[in-house]
Order: sequence, then C-alpha cells, then structure tokens
Amino acid sequence: MSPEDSITLIKANLAEILNPQIIENVILNEKRALKVYWGAATTGRPHCGYFVPMMKIAELLAAGCELTILLADLHAYLDNMKAPMELIEHRAKYYEFVVKSTLKAAGVDISKLKFVKGTSYQTSQNYIMDLFKALGITSVNDAKRAGAEVVKQTDNPMLGGLVYPLMQMLDEEYLEVDAQIGGVDQRKIFVHALETLPRLGYKPRAHLMNPMVPGLGEAAKMSASDADSKIDLLDSPEDVKKKMKKAVCSAKVVEGNGVIAFVEHVILRALVLKDGKDAKIVVDGAELVYTNMEKLKEDYAADTLTPQLLKSTLTKYLNDLLAPIRTDFEASTEWQDIQGKAYPVVEKVKFMKGKKGTKGGERPNAKKGGIETKADGHLEGEGTKKANVSPKTEVFKKIELKGS
Amino acid sequence: MSPEDSITLIKANLAEILNPQIIENVILNEKRALKVYWGAATTGRPHCGYFVPMMKIAELLAAGCELTILLADLHAYLDNMKAPMELIEHRAKYYEFVVKSTLKAAGVDISKLKFVKGTSYQTSQNYIMDLFKALGITSVNDAKRAGAEVVKQTDNPMLGGLVYPLMQMLDEEYLEVDAQIGGVDQRKIFVHALETLPRLGYKPRAHLMNPMVPGLGEAAKMSASDADSKIDLLDSPEDVKKKMKKAVCSAKVVEGNGVIAFVEHVILRALVLKDGKDAKIVVDGAELVYTNMEKLKEDYAADTLTPQLLKSTLTKYLNDLLAPIRTDFEASTEWQDIQGKAYPVVEKVKFMKGKKGTKGGERPNAKKGGIETKADGHLEGEGTKKANVSPKTEVFKKIELKGS
Repeated sequence: MSPEDSITLIKANLAEILNPQIIENVILNEKRALKVYWGAATTGRPHCGYFVPMMKIAELLAAGCELTILLADLHAYLDNMKAPMELIEHRAKYYEFVVKSTLKAAGVDISKLKFVKGTSYQTSQNYIMDLFKALGITSVNDAKRAGAEVVKQTDNPMLGGLVYPLMQMLDEEYLEVDAQIGGVDQRKIFVHALETLPRLGYKPRAHLMNPMVPGLGEAAKMSASDADSKIDLLDSPEDVKKKMKKAVCSAKVVEGNGVIAFVEHVILRALVLKDGKDAKIVVDGAELVYTNMEKLKEDYAADTLTPQLLKSTLTKYLNDLLAPIRTDFEASTEWQDIQGKAYPVVEKVKFMKGKKGTKGGERPNAKKGGIETKADGHLEGEGTKKANVSPKTEVFKKIELKGS
Repeated sequence: MSPEDSITLIKANLAEILNPQIIENVILNEKRALKVYWGAATTGRPHCGYFVPMMKIAELLAAGCELTILLADLHAYLDNMKAPMELIEHRAKYYEFVVKSTLKAAGVDISKLKFVKGTSYQTSQNYIMDLFKALGITSVNDAKRAGAEVVKQTDNPMLGGLVYPLMQMLDEEYLEVDAQIGGVDQRKIFVHALETLPRLGYKPRAHLMNPMVPGLGEAAKMSASDADSKIDLLDSPEDVKKKMKKAVCSAKVVEGNGVIAFVEHVILRALVLKDGKDAKIVVDGAELVYTNMEKLKEDYAADTLTPQLLKSTLTKYLNDLLAPIRTDFEASTEWQDIQGKAYPVVEKVKFMKGKKGTKGGERPNAKKGGIETKADGHLEGEGTKKANVSPKTEVFKKIELKGS
C-alpha cells in the first residue's frame, strides 16, 4: 500500500481527527509505521458492538499501523472493587482472545498488534510521579469538563473519575504511541490530553475518533433483560438469528436504525477490507445487491428493502463474520478455560432503583447511543458509570449466578 | 514513668484528641509504646516556630512513645515543581538534622525517633493501589471539606490539593502508627481519615492536635521582609536579641500575644521537661519568678511584667534553647554542607502582587495564625498554598540569590 493510500485508509470512516498532521508527518516524513493505541476496560463480556471499533482497528492494521491494545485492568478493578483482581485478569486474557480472533476474522494481519495491561506500567514510579504532576496542574473543573461525555455527570463526582482522564492522557506517552483512537464521545478527554501533555514536557498526540453508532440492542432498552438483546461474539448461528429478530428495525426509518448502522459500519467495511472494490452485499430472496450504503438506504427508505430482508441479510453476514471466531474458540481449550473463569455464568445483571422494585429496570444514568458508547474507549464501560455513584446512593446490583 | 503518667503526658498541652481510647488501649492493655507520626513538607527553612510541634514531640518521646517523622519530600516536590528533587532531598536531610538537634536540645532521649521519607513508600505499588481505591470512594466535596482549613479555598481547586489529605490518611497505615499528631487546623483531615480508613479495610487511628499558637512573626506581617522577623534555629544570640526587639508585644495584652504564647508553649514546657516540678522562669532585672503561666499572664495584664522584661526574658531562655543546636551545627561539617546545598543563600523571598510593585508584600492568601500554622503539619507549608494557585494567576516570586 502506498503511503498516500495508507493515510487515506487511516482517516477513513472517522467522525473527526485531531492533529492529522502528526499522522502525515510520521508516514510521509519519518517514513515509519504509525503507532496507535486503543484502550478497553476489561469488565463486561464483549458483544457484537465491539465490531465497530474493531473494524477501525482492522483498517489501521491493514494500513500498516502498529496497534497497541491497552487492556485497562487497573481501571476495571478500580471501577468495581467488588470484583477481585484475579477475575479482572481472567477478563483481560479473555479480551485478548476476543480482539485477536475478531481481527483475524476481519482478515487482517495481526503481527503488528500487541497487548499491554494497564497494571504493567500504571503503578510504576515514573508513571505515578507524572500522574502526581498532572494532578497538580489540573483543576477539578478541567477534569470534570474532560470527562463530561463519558463519566456520569454530577456536581460532586468521586475523585477517581476525575483522575482517569489524566491517566488516559499519560497512557499515550507511556505506550509510546503517535495517536489514540476512541469514540467521538471521548473528544473532550482528547482535547484535554492535547493541551496538558505538553505542560508535562511530552508531545501532544493525534486523536482518531470513531462515529457514534446506534446499537442493535436499542430495542431492549426498556426491558428487564438487556443481556438477551446483545449478540455475543460466541453466540450460535441460531441465537444470532433469534436475537436479530428482536432488534428494532422500523420500516423506512434509516436514521438511528441500529441494523442499518451495523451493516454500514461493520459488514460493508469488513467486505471492503476483504474484497476491496468488489465488495458487495447480496440480499438473498430478492434481486438486490449493494456496493454502497447510499443505494441501500434509499431502498430501505422506499421499503424496497424491507426490515425482514435487511435483518436476514445481516444475520447471514454477521454469522459469516462470527464463524471463524467460534472456530477459534472451539479449537482453544485455553480460551474456553478462561471464559469459564472470566465470566462465571452471570446470566442476568439487574439494576434495581428505589421504588421500581425487584423487576429491575434501566441502568441508572446509562448513556444512550448504543454500540459505540458501550464498546469503545475504556472510560465508557459499565464500571465508570458506577465509579461515580456514591456508595450511599448506589443502586442494588443483583447478579444471579447459575452453575457453570 | 508509670503508664498513667505516660498517658497524662501524651495528652498534655493539646487542643483536642480524637479516639483517645486507642492511646489508652495501646499503653494499658497492649502494654507497648504508642507509635505516633508527624509529617513535615521539606520546603522552607525551619525557624523557631518549629519549637511548638517539637515541644509536643519531645513530650511524646519523654512519655515513651515511638516517633516517626515523615519527611514529606514528595509533597514538597509536587507543591513546587520548579525546585529539583535533588534540592528537596537536601532539605529533607537538613530537616532531619534540625529535628534531631532540637529534640536533643529539649533534653529528651531520641533513640525512639525515626525519619522516613515520603518517596521511600508513597510511590510503591501497594500504596498507589490504595490511593486509587481511596480516590474511587472520595467525592470532590468530601476531599475539599477535609482540606478546608489547610488548603487554599477555591471553587475550582487543583486535583493535587484534594489528593494530599488522602495520602496523609494512608501514611498512618503505611507508617504503621497508632496516632498522628498535627495542628488543630488539621482536624477535618483527621476526621476524614478516621471515617475513610475503615472503608479501605484499615483501622482508624487516634489524632493528637496541637493548639494554634500566635507567632512571634506576627509583627512583620505587613512589612516587606517577613524573613527578618523569623528567628532561625541557627541565628546568633545577637540576631535573636535584635529580632526579638521587633516582635509585637503590646503592654497588658495577653490574648494573641506571640511572645507570651512562645513562653507558654515552648519555654515553660521545655523547662518542665527538664526540671519537672522545679521548673521556673526567672525574670532578670526584676523580682519576678514564675512557675506557671497564670501568674505570669496576670502580672503582664497588670503591666508588672512589662513587654521589655518579657522580651529580654524570652531572649535569654530562647538562646539557652538554641545554644546546643548551634553547637551541634558547628560540630557537624555534614550539616553545614547540607545547609549550603538545601538553602543556597536565599536572602529574601519577595512576593509581588499586581500594582504593589517591587516592594513586595504579604504572601497571597497566606493564613493568619502564626507559628503553628506555618510549622506544623505537612499540608500547611508554603508549597501547599501555591499548589492551588492556578499557573495563570500565580504571583511572581522573586528569589534574590546572593553569593554563598
């Protein structure tokens, strides 16, 4: 791939880029691979929503970048101190399996992909001294502003939630990258990092931002069992089919349609990575073939492409994407073993809120916005929200364990 | 000394004690020495004000306690990042010389006195994990409230200032003490520590609080050269005499009188430590002898004991107290060497504030309250105030270096 094509692919499908000249300088002048990091708190079990950031990471790898996946185990631990560190470490390992397999399924070379655990450097003396320095030059309001989109907003947040944006900034330096990638909801954290790193004597980084993509799970938002609607990366083809049927997909409505969004941001991009200009989406049971989203959306708006057809098409392609991941899993006793240890058959996670009683309900202050919000960037996980819920007001979280 | 006498001496001359039952339990039931820590940020050069906390530490040593002096070099460094760590370390060493010599001058056995530098454990993995945990359960408002008396108050403080009270709390656990001692202005930090340590799985500690004592330096508050009025622990007898003459000491005014306060909290207590019940203050040039402060204050209010007499008396006793310290200094080339490195002849520290121009002026937001405020507890030093001054509004600090 030519340097120009590489730059084009790096910049493709993003909502925004801060300091793009850093990218160009590395590739065109320094003539080396761009080093990028993506962070994920190793908490909840990764579901299909992870395909959105993974697709961008796949594009970056295809463009020749060196990718560092930060397995933010320290964040995960701190956000939910009830979970022992051992569990978090199993989850970190599980995430590593999932990310590797997902990217291989996307057909990209993962030789330039590496994994780093937060605990491997975030408590080192140098890191901590820098964190102390950052704390000394960052006001409460600046830290609040930085985390405004991803940390639960309150007049009186926990200090922990205010410290995380500073760590995310230092991670850029300590992971020795040129750029960080995250959802566009991380914009304020990124801007704060841009402004603050130089005050600590470090160079500012470029920031790549994925668009926010409506989730497949939107359908279930008001139901008690959110988990049912999430498609796990290891779900069987039958389960995928069943869950896809439940997905909200109103006829003719393109805007905010999670099914269309998934086709656009995952399926088509995966096909383009694989087949290049020959990529196309074939709708079985109809004379419909799409090579771009414009035509697909047009047909959907006109109801030529019905929700039923779209869902069955997505089911087929998603199962194609999941098949090699399932195969990897079935071939790896290590991965299977880690799965049991990392997620000891937590069937339901219910949040109960005051008078709403035992029927469960919506997650308190859970953010709307679907897939990307939940899957991308380590400040967005389940945990972070809870980190800012005072112990006194924290809602009761009931985890039903069913024997493994 | 009997256990009961020991407890009485430990509790003597304090403004308040939190959880005194811890002290009694250690001495009466566990039948071991009470372990106490006192922290000092190793920043400004220690002056006579240090005698106030030192006198309490001397009493604790006399009562058989094990004393740990925390040389808070990390705080000192973070509070003034312009000073290199090397300088801070020289100052830590200087503090160690001063504290040891001062306590020896007070006539107590210092075999149960030890010094620990903050950097020796405050960046260790365990400490940092605990600090992260503490950050996760402490709200901004709780941290602000804890530091309210000792950290500059603002609606938008730096995060650093909010983290220090949490470290001061963890220090109790990591220094393995039963109690912490500090000025009564640290009360809110202590209460926060009491409430929060158990939430981290650690036992709460007792807290001993020294009263706030008006300073000898009050006189100079509006003058340009604050330094002139501070009596250094190594000042010559002539300098002490000269500076004492400048001290404010209004006839008949007992309340808020720094000279009387110094006699009460330093001189008389030092004499009691040395001579027990035979302790007395003899006023030369008059037929006056005091064995307690009540009579001295009565005579001062009646002008029987005039300011001139009181000052000359204090000068005499203070020089007696300083004499062995000077002797120690003159005998130690190491201490002399460290002095040059720790305080490279900073003759004047001027703070200039906007239009007040080059004549200097009062320290911005410096707290009133004299000796104790400035000398006791590591959240009170010069540095901490500055830590919460935004870099944008920080006043210009001019240090005139004169060749050593």
